[in-house]
Amino acid sequence: MKRKSLEGSTCSVARTLDIIGDWWTLLIVRDALNGLTRFGEFQKSLGIAKNMLTQRLKQLVEQGILAVRPATDGSAWNEYVLTEKGRALQMVLVALSQWGGEYLFDSKEKCNILVDNKHHQPLRKLTLQAQDGRTITPDEVVLERSTVPAE
Amino acid sequence: MKRKSLEGSTCSVARTLDIIGDWWTLLIVRDALNGLTRFGEFQKSLGIAKNMLTQRLKQLVEQGILAVRPATDGSAWNEYVLTEKGRALQMVLVALSQWGGEYLFDSKEKCNILVDNKHHQPLRKLTLQAQDGRTITPDEVVLERSTVPAE
Repeated sequence: MKRKSLEGSTCSVARTLDIIGDWWTLLIVRDALNGLTRFGEFQKSLGIAKNMLTQRLKQLVEQGILAVRPATDGSAWNEYVLTEKGRALQMVLVALSQWGGEYLFDSKEKCNILVDNKHHQPLRKLTLQAQDGRTITPDEVVLERSTVPAE
Repeated sequence: MKRKSLEGSTCSVARTLDIIGDWWTLLIVRDALNGLTRFGEFQKSLGIAKNMLTQRLKQLVEQGILAVRPATDGSAWNEYVLTEKGRALQMVLVALSQWGGEYLFDSKEKCNILVDNKHHQPLRKLTLQAQDGRTITPDEVVLERSTVPAE
């Protein structure tokens, strides 16, 4: 499907979607966060055609979201591991997961949820906070043109 | 492009991507959050073909993300407004925007950022919190099969 490239957009949402707009990308990142590293593991988990998976993994490596390393068990297979940039996408997955859990599932339906690995309790719902720490609602957020704030 | 439907998936990330995996969807929601309501306004903002926009708006209404209402100015045009379910996608946009702002822009590059409408300061970076309020890292999050937690 042909699409307009948003690579040069000044909107960080648009530019991000240009990189990760393909839903396979986020599902590969999800699986990588869950510890999958091998081509065959991703293929089994996603049920994706091999040529499509090859292409997506290549893109993710080119974008610096995944890195390739030799297998830790000494076998001939490569392993794909998330970079820091890739691991940071966890926040996007948490936001997607919480929205889906709230609006797309019946209350008694089985749903994979994100929990902390210590107490195995669901994460708190994400909240929007102003710079001064106030919790704000979606209506209080506006998009403004600016340079990226220094971290 | 043919794709596997994830509508019945038990993974809330996968099910959400099945609904909003098309990047146009999130850009329409972004524009709606910024106050756009008319077909022509979305079309101008997105540069999307009219037939594609018609189809996406129809899907968004069917999914309960947008609602259609008569024009508030008495003209013949319909207006598209976000439902509560649609407004809740703001969190996904914030997560995408913050990731993009951090990893896809040079420090001096112009970038649209999300600010609070009171002090016009950038939002705080989203953080992951365990149920007990502890801030946790992506590495401390695991995906578990469960029913949706009661709100």
